Amino acid sequence: MPHRSGRHFLQIPGPTNVPDRVLRAIAQPTIDHRSAEFAVLAKDVLLRIRAVFNTRGPVLIFPASGTGAWEAALVNTLSPGDRVLSFETGEFARLWAELARRIGLDVEVVNTDWRSGVDPELVEGILRGDHDRAIRAVMVVHNETSTGVTSRLREIREAMDAAGHPALLLVDAVSSLGSIDLRHDEWGIDVTLSGSQKGLMLPPGLSFNAVSDRAINAHHNAKLQKSYWDWGPMLTANATGFFPYTPATNLLFGLREALTMLEEEGLEQVVARHRRLAEATRVAVRAWGLPTVCTREEEHSPVLTGVLMPEGHDADALRRVASERFNMSLGAGLGRLKGRAFRIGHLGDFNELMLAGTLCGVEMSLGLAGVPHQKGGVQAALDRLAARPDH
Amino acid sequence: MPHRSGRHFLQIPGPTNVPDRVLRAIAQPTIDHRSAEFAVLAKDVLLRIRAVFNTRGPVLIFPASGTGAWEAALVNTLSPGDRVLSFETGEFARLWAELARRIGLDVEVVNTDWRSGVDPELVEGILRGDHDRAIRAVMVVHNETSTGVTSRLREIREAMDAAGHPALLLVDAVSSLGSIDLRHDEWGIDVTLSGSQKGLMLPPGLSFNAVSDRAINAHHNAKLQKSYWDWGPMLTANATGFFPYTPATNLLFGLREALTMLEEEGLEQVVARHRRLAEATRVAVRAWGLPTVCTREEEHSPVLTGVLMPEGHDADALRRVASERFNMSLGAGLGRLKGRAFRIGHLGDFNELMLAGTLCGVEMSLGLAGVPHQKGGVQAALDRLAARPDH
Amino acid sequence: MPHRSGRHFLQIPGPTNVPDRVLRAIAQPTIDHRSAEFAVLAKDVLLRIRAVFNTRGPVLIFPASGTGAWEAALVNTLSPGDRVLSFETGEFARLWAELARRIGLDVEVVNTDWRSGVDPELVEGILRGDHDRAIRAVMVVHNETSTGVTSRLREIREAMDAAGHPALLLVDAVSSLGSIDLRHDEWGIDVTLSGSQKGLMLPPGLSFNAVSDRAINAHHNAKLQKSYWDWGPMLTANATGFFPYTPATNLLFGLREALTMLEEEGLEQVVARHRRLAEATRVAVRAWGLPTVCTREEEHSPVLTGVLMPEGHDADALRRVASERFNMSLGAGLGRLKGRAFRIGHLGDFNELMLAGTLCGVEMSLGLAGVPHQKGGVQAALDRLAARPDH
Amino acid sequence: MPHRSGRHFLQIPGPTNVPDRVLRAIAQPTIDHRSAEFAVLAKDVLLRIRAVFNTRGPVLIFPASGTGAWEAALVNTLSPGDRVLSFETGEFARLWAELARRIGLDVEVVNTDWRSGVDPELVEGILRGDHDRAIRAVMVVHNETSTGVTSRLREIREAMDAAGHPALLLVDAVSSLGSIDLRHDEWGIDVTLSGSQKGLMLPPGLSFNAVSDRAINAHHNAKLQKSYWDWGPMLTANATGFFPYTPATNLLFGLREALTMLEEEGLEQVVARHRRLAEATRVAVRAWGLPTVCTREEEHSPVLTGVLMPEGHDADALRRVASERFNMSLGAGLGRLKGRAFRIGHLGDFNELMLAGTLCGVEMSLGLAGVPHQKGGVQAALDRLAARPDH
Repeated sequence: MPHRSGRHFLQIPGPTNVPDRVLRAIAQPTIDHRSAEFAVLAKDVLLRIRAVFNTRGPVLIFPASGTGAWEAALVNTLSPGDRVLSFETGEFARLWAELARRIGLDVEVVNTDWRSGVDPELVEGILRGDHDRAIRAVMVVHNETSTGVTSRLREIREAMDAAGHPALLLVDAVSSLGSIDLRHDEWGIDVTLSGSQKGLMLPPGLSFNAVSDRAINAHHNAKLQKSYWDWGPMLTANATGFFPYTPATNLLFGLREALTMLEEEGLEQVVARHRRLAEATRVAVRAWGLPTVCTREEEHSPVLTGVLMPEGHDADALRRVASERFNMSLGAGLGRLKGRAFRIGHLGDFNELMLAGTLCGVEMSLGLAGVPHQKGGVQAALDRLAARPDH
Repeated sequence: MPHRSGRHFLQIPGPTNVPDRVLRAIAQPTIDHRSAEFAVLAKDVLLRIRAVFNTRGPVLIFPASGTGAWEAALVNTLSPGDRVLSFETGEFARLWAELARRIGLDVEVVNTDWRSGVDPELVEGILRGDHDRAIRAVMVVHNETSTGVTSRLREIREAMDAAGHPALLLVDAVSSLGSIDLRHDEWGIDVTLSGSQKGLMLPPGLSFNAVSDRAINAHHNAKLQKSYWDWGPMLTANATGFFPYTPATNLLFGLREALTMLEEEGLEQVVARHRRLAEATRVAVRAWGLPTVCTREEEHSPVLTGVLMPEGHDADALRRVASERFNMSLGAGLGRLKGRAFRIGHLGDFNELMLAGTLCGVEMSLGLAGVPHQKGGVQAALDRLAARPDH
Repeated sequence: MPHRSGRHFLQIPGPTNVPDRVLRAIAQPTIDHRSAEFAVLAKDVLLRIRAVFNTRGPVLIFPASGTGAWEAALVNTLSPGDRVLSFETGEFARLWAELARRIGLDVEVVNTDWRSGVDPELVEGILRGDHDRAIRAVMVVHNETSTGVTSRLREIREAMDAAGHPALLLVDAVSSLGSIDLRHDEWGIDVTLSGSQKGLMLPPGLSFNAVSDRAINAHHNAKLQKSYWDWGPMLTANATGFFPYTPATNLLFGLREALTMLEEEGLEQVVARHRRLAEATRVAVRAWGLPTVCTREEEHSPVLTGVLMPEGHDADALRRVASERFNMSLGAGLGRLKGRAFRIGHLGDFNELMLAGTLCGVEMSLGLAGVPHQKGGVQAALDRLAARPDH
Repeated sequence: MPHRSGRHFLQIPGPTNVPDRVLRAIAQPTIDHRSAEFAVLAKDVLLRIRAVFNTRGPVLIFPASGTGAWEAALVNTLSPGDRVLSFETGEFARLWAELARRIGLDVEVVNTDWRSGVDPELVEGILRGDHDRAIRAVMVVHNETSTGVTSRLREIREAMDAAGHPALLLVDAVSSLGSIDLRHDEWGIDVTLSGSQKGLMLPPGLSFNAVSDRAINAHHNAKLQKSYWDWGPMLTANATGFFPYTPATNLLFGLREALTMLEEEGLEQVVARHRRLAEATRVAVRAWGLPTVCTREEEHSPVLTGVLMPEGHDADALRRVASERFNMSLGAGLGRLKGRAFRIGHLGDFNELMLAGTLCGVEMSLGLAGVPHQKGGVQAALDRLAARPDH
């Protein structure tokens, strides 16, 4: 493709803008994955990745994209016909449930309006009603990338505890890891799964399963067919710094660098930054007079904002303007939101002026696409961004 | 790790020395895998990769390492309990058969001495004896990376035809693709599977399935559990230049560059170069008075040479010397060859002087490790390498 | 330094944001500068760079920064004691004149208020008054990087012609080349000098002299001491694709890529883009109620905007806020403008949203630094940027 | 140019094989050279480079290639008409003397046979004979890159001391710095000049002057015309981490990485490695029965070996074979050695197997080019390389 001047604004909710430090790291010469040098690398990232999940337990790394982590979480903990509880909070929750069904699980789906997260009370109610403890796992998407809604994991955990139900808690943290507060151990999550191309600031190609002791116990009895995703040989090999099959070595170089960057900034600061930039984004959206997809104040996503279009206006036409005129990618509405919503990604290696440029691009595109809106969104966001960062 | 001067000699049979052109290509900023720009990339590599397989049919690309391609080839064409015929020509053939068993196939294994390839006559005999056509697939490792033996695929195909048996032919071309003559269409292969980190000169992280029409038909009835590896959604999405889930975008950038390099040199020249460098390697090994693992002249691998140690000498001790004194990685003996053999990789982005340096390193290491051998291997190889390239 | 999230906004008027394509190009392995491969590279860039200068004549490339090009232009065309006419339109014009004095030229300096360019009428008057034709060269800074004023070169040429004066016209195009309309041949410039780190989108380290036939004739009689900067051996060596001493090979790799990018976009489009983004910048500055350094409408620079601070407010304090709070570098006031002005660079590989982010950063910083201003600059700029690009 | 498989062997005596760590470092985004971040970088490299020169005094860094450092050393310490003593030990010594003459110095040249270094006794004799102390400086090329002869600097210093002569000692260390033992302070060198593209393992584009207190005193009275090369503003600006004009920022990123690599290996180990690899090279050359250009055992260069061709055989024909058949660049004979000698570079980021590959390439090329020689050079070198590294 011919050159378009200046940097592309990759404002989809992942893949995110990969920092050049990470890009240079993955450009290192590939090494022998059976060498001592590799073992040093692997042990290092396997250990340091734990802090991002807030876990002391093992994190498994697959050479795969996030969809593989979905599959891995299920096939390692469940058996054919097992019942799982799923909440369709959006397109990705829907797809994960579909995957579960496809591999032979009995999926109970709780529908939502796609504008709010998993309701902890509902979780408690359903589990209390599950008298014979048939439900083996609860599947929750932490941050629904298709809508911009973040489910309240801590409260969901409390609800499960209140119901006294032994189901495993399986959490999709693909677009929350490294950006939104997430505590694998403290919140009693059994499998937290994720991918490399969002908050970890890497290209796609790595996926993760952080696993609890209970999950590992479940693995021993899980009968779903598995080979590539099998935790067993992976845990064994990882113990000495190796993998049971060829890992994606160059992405591991990138992971090492990304972990260093997260440590340099500090995970708490990273989380606060995402929250701050998300607030400024919502200030702009509100000023434009457009509704966010998310309807609950405490569930707004810190990593992306889903915006609903006025009736009769096509989100994809708007996105086309942003792309053609301003060299910016915005996220499309997915599934039932196709054409009705667009998504602004504001996660990963991101800062105030990148967001400002992004919001300017959205505001101009709204005008050019003839979408009814109030001007002044950018101005409102600037006022917010210029306020003290720790406010 | 502290700096060791000069370039590392990565002479394992993969991952291979990734050319810096490819490393720079994968360091390009990640793009939106739902964008028009991505579709241009995807269509380009999906089309051009076919030539490397010598096929006009589709090639599927998974964000995974080669092991995933093994699984994909099986789960897309077979059903639980299906009988498959496997030949244990080495460690990788053994592992693939083990995988087949683990996912529920009925694997008939033909053992070998690990020093020769699949015997076409044996194939014909077994298939002729399979009166009720219970064997649904024949699994062949084209180039056994653990031994340095290349099976005679064309003759195997002819044997299957002679037997008039309808079994699918599934071929592991992980270490042959892009280095050894391989003709998916002409030889009637049903699935040719491969990975990125050998002859394609990429880091690990991509794997491939080239599929015949018969394979696609088999897919419609295949009942093995699958989701990530499912050809169906992949073929559908690929048609418009997309993937059903997030692809390993940056490795696709690298693939585009690697394909260009293969085209610049010409696939025939690439194959001839591998053959030429392999011959020079064997000339050296013979001069040292050491036996190759491979015992059949027509089955010597063009991409690696497995060398047997004299009784009482440890191949891993030799490899340690090569690593510590000469900053060179050699391949270990695997499985039953552990400690008894070492492997010299001479594939990928490789040339005469890289091979010469490699053989010098092996010859010096043999001396330093106290391995009984004749000097003069390097000299003999140089005489061969200096001869006309087209001889 | 620890990681600061997101991209740095490098909004000084050079070095500019180097595109990652160029950065990858300069990361290619260094080659033998006496090889055939190098000659192909050198001939290619030596030929293609001419179009950027709008010349059919030779362009010399020095491994040096722009200051070296200043010296080269003088020592190759003049002799000790020669009189030259210089216009102090800003700090860089002042420094060039100082250099001329230091190497033994007799420099006649015309002062200005640093807020306008070289006055063509004044040029004509002075040259008409130079009855004995003592003035050997007129030194003009095309775009004064310290102020944001672009001198009207075409009119200056016409003035020299009108005066019928034979002085050479030496032009500093360090910050105009590749960004502002510049016609070496058509405007009868004798030496157009430049550097790599502005419109050419490269790191610093290359400098250029485009030379007319008259300049080459002057070289034959020029007596100023020279060796490194001597055009003679350079022109001879260049003829066959080589250099008289080791060139900065890797920056030449970058130049090749940058030229391709300029060709892809089209030089006319590049110039129009700079003009458009500069206009939007001035719209913002005016809305803030701040004066630009430049006072003449037809002399506003398309590559940077110098902004004067209100009395009693320190430009460097403002720049500190921009740097610390928003990870953005703005240009300092230089020389007599130190502390009194700041400079917004908007050149090179740059686009609408990068500018929008930049202006947002300036507007927020003005507020945070307590600089009296009207809000609304960003909004005004957006209205302009959203207007048709070809308006 | 189309792809040639495998790595190029860049075995000229500079530019050397730039390590990929350094290439990635120079691919970092260019930063503002007036920023605090830059000052941290500049102070760091300005301090750490001293250890490579073995000096506690300042080292000046120019954005230029080595030729610029030649000029800088002279124009900063001398005045027009000053007499300097030069020894034509080869082509580079000749060119430096020529440069000195061109800028107005009175150069006394001592001729040699180009096969040995500067004779310390001769230095002493000439200086003793210079009764009126007219000689202001002695110019010595430490390692003559055109021949492979290293002059005995320590003994030259002692000779100057013995003569009690106050002349400055100016040393060209372009191809010795970072590879050959060199002690600026201990040996009383006044200016040690160098470039980036040899032992420092960088691309060309930086040059260096390490300066003594006496040199700085000389600077105060030196009248040769200078501006770009003037130490004065450079020393002043460096004190706070800046440069008087735009530095070659990206090469400074590379320098930072290269210094780290030298420190990791240890300068003493680096020097020993070069000596060891050079010895192995000479063992090969002797076995081939070819004379080295250098005739004195104690003056053989550790960084390159100049080899004389048998009468009637063209070195450039040999080099063409090496390039076309083996993708290896060898150094040409220069000046009076054109066609009569070739040069093997073995410096920089280099190791045993790279040398082994190089020597194999030379031995095969000798055969293919029909150059009379004994086989067995490689074998002899391997025997030497396999001996204990510390022998």
